[in-house]
Amino acid sequence: MSKDYLAARQKKLISQLKRIGAEALLVTSETNVTYLTGFSGDSSYLLIGKSQTVLISDGRYTTQLEEECPGLDVYIRKATESMTAALEKVLKKAHLPKLGFESHVVTCDLLDALSGLTPAVQWIPVSGLVEELRMIKDVSEIQEIREAVSQAQRGYEVFRAMLTDEMTELQGAHELEHAMRRFGARQAAFDPIVAVGERAALPHAIPTQKQVGEAPFLLVDWGAMTQKGYRSDLTRMIVHGRTSAKFEKVYQTVLKAQVAAIKAIRPGVSCQEVDQTARTIIQKAGFGKQFTHSLGHGIGLDIHEGPRLGGNITTELKPGMIVTVEPGIYLPGWGGVRIEDDVLVTRTGHEVLTSVPKDFESTIL
Amino acid sequence: MSKDYLAARQKKLISQLKRIGAEALLVTSETNVTYLTGFSGDSSYLLIGKSQTVLISDGRYTTQLEEECPGLDVYIRKATESMTAALEKVLKKAHLPKLGFESHVVTCDLLDALSGLTPAVQWIPVSGLVEELRMIKDVSEIQEIREAVSQAQRGYEVFRAMLTDEMTELQGAHELEHAMRRFGARQAAFDPIVAVGERAALPHAIPTQKQVGEAPFLLVDWGAMTQKGYRSDLTRMIVHGRTSAKFEKVYQTVLKAQVAAIKAIRPGVSCQEVDQTARTIIQKAGFGKQFTHSLGHGIGLDIHEGPRLGGNITTELKPGMIVTVEPGIYLPGWGGVRIEDDVLVTRTGHEVLTSVPKDFESTIL
Repeated sequence: MSKDYLAARQKKLISQLKRIGAEALLVTSETNVTYLTGFSGDSSYLLIGKSQTVLISDGRYTTQLEEECPGLDVYIRKATESMTAALEKVLKKAHLPKLGFESHVVTCDLLDALSGLTPAVQWIPVSGLVEELRMIKDVSEIQEIREAVSQAQRGYEVFRAMLTDEMTELQGAHELEHAMRRFGARQAAFDPIVAVGERAALPHAIPTQKQVGEAPFLLVDWGAMTQKGYRSDLTRMIVHGRTSAKFEKVYQTVLKAQVAAIKAIRPGVSCQEVDQTARTIIQKAGFGKQFTHSLGHGIGLDIHEGPRLGGNITTELKPGMIVTVEPGIYLPGWGGVRIEDDVLVTRTGHEVLTSVPKDFESTIL
Repeated sequence: MSKDYLAARQKKLISQLKRIGAEALLVTSETNVTYLTGFSGDSSYLLIGKSQTVLISDGRYTTQLEEECPGLDVYIRKATESMTAALEKVLKKAHLPKLGFESHVVTCDLLDALSGLTPAVQWIPVSGLVEELRMIKDVSEIQEIREAVSQAQRGYEVFRAMLTDEMTELQGAHELEHAMRRFGARQAAFDPIVAVGERAALPHAIPTQKQVGEAPFLLVDWGAMTQKGYRSDLTRMIVHGRTSAKFEKVYQTVLKAQVAAIKAIRPGVSCQEVDQTARTIIQKAGFGKQFTHSLGHGIGLDIHEGPRLGGNITTELKPGMIVTVEPGIYLPGWGGVRIEDDVLVTRTGHEVLTSVPKDFESTIL
């Protein structure tokens, strides 16, 4: 990652500290540390402020930090030195009487430990500040997510070509992850869902020993994670047998809702408006109660980030946000259909980052 | 998992609540919820006490809960109902003025939310109580870890047979995970380490594009996770070229230290004694400073659990504990050697659960 992008992220964060009345922020969320420094390891805290920015890590990561974070001020604690003892040393040198901490991440026990440090610090709870910055992706992040999409799509092609009637959901999920890794993915973005027939009625189906041949269709919800940790998230249906007219009706309804919702995406539109666009179409077709979840969510270093495309979310879309659009209709005991793409909000509208065909004909194996 | 084991775990926990002055404990750690109920999903809290035990979950898990937790009292919250709102409803029905919460897990924001609930509850911080129970594995857990060992070992055989000079560390790590899944693993117990030549000097090496053929030896640190979430953890060296006399000397030193430490394992011996047994042998051979970490750690639902076999840990070993024994010698720029097995503490001594050959000859491909 270019140092310029990291510097810009740090600068943006620092510029917000005044507003919360803190000289610096102690970042303890691993993902937020990665976002601000490019460091991909764990067990490390970042103290970031106008006067000083320092990463506290340990000896396992000395070499990795030199490679990943050249120029970053690093404090390597000894094996016998606890994280809080190391932090105490760093704080003694700095003069930071008011410090923010991530109250949505820090446990009660850790806050107790922080409160006992000398010199005395006034700890100010700060919730979701870095996560708010992370909602808007910069150019290097958009590039990473494009890469995660490409890895997912190429892996899916291999997986689709490998399908047999005998393959179980579990084997399918494993083959899919393995295939994405062939194209450079560090791992799957999340445990892939391969749900055969009626199991597709479970929005978060866990793969079982059920075989692909046991029903005429399956649902696949998958994504890739790049080496740097960025993720993609897609869903497609695969039809390999005779389906009913009802199946096609459900499919076309979901597709129509998804396409309309994507079309609605542009800066200034609220998340709930986009959700409502899809929901109205599904309701009119008589399946409103079977669309049981929000329309979508942001993706990035986490598989679920802000903003959420949900019924009560008034957040306005802004250029640089990347969201999933994934309406679904779930009929217990019968099956379900979901179609999901990843969409970048651009200055003038949107760009669909994913490109696996999704018209009904293309689902047929 | 048999309901009897789960009932026994719950009973043990409940019997300890009096000591901490609470009528019940709110379990928010996902892993601890799994341990106490057998439920393998996430986003669920368990309220457990003498008068009532109830799991609060959501609609995605209704079917899974019926399968995994028959007989467990379950509150399914609606999509529009927050977890804390659901908890409030449950608490209103119960009469629990003093409630424990997992202070090492609960974030400051969550405690704020809990403190605002009605009826008013006195929240008592409880740290590591379930984790303490988890240190001693029951028969069903030992069986699961044996399964995780078997999956890891069979996967390793396939991986070892597949090795080529051209294979990269990353490809190797992916093939290894894929092979373990062939034998029923849900996934790798942790990201496998495949470290070629001098990269073996990094105790937590992250796989790179380095090829197996670039050095005469490699280190492989891997394990499997069963469908129920239990883990194994092994390390072996593979030699496929001409190594130096120094390599064999380092190898034999680590092996001697590891075998001696395993021999020392029995009930009543302290963790630090076992660590010291290995450390003394490595120190005498002149490599004391190159053995930079603790000797081992417990394994179970987490890859790192109690007890830690470390220099300052006075915990006494007890029957049912399962620990890794993994001394290592790391020489930056040259390479490293680590050998790791999983050992069960029995009533009369110990049983080594892992059985991949480790004499020097057997490392040669």
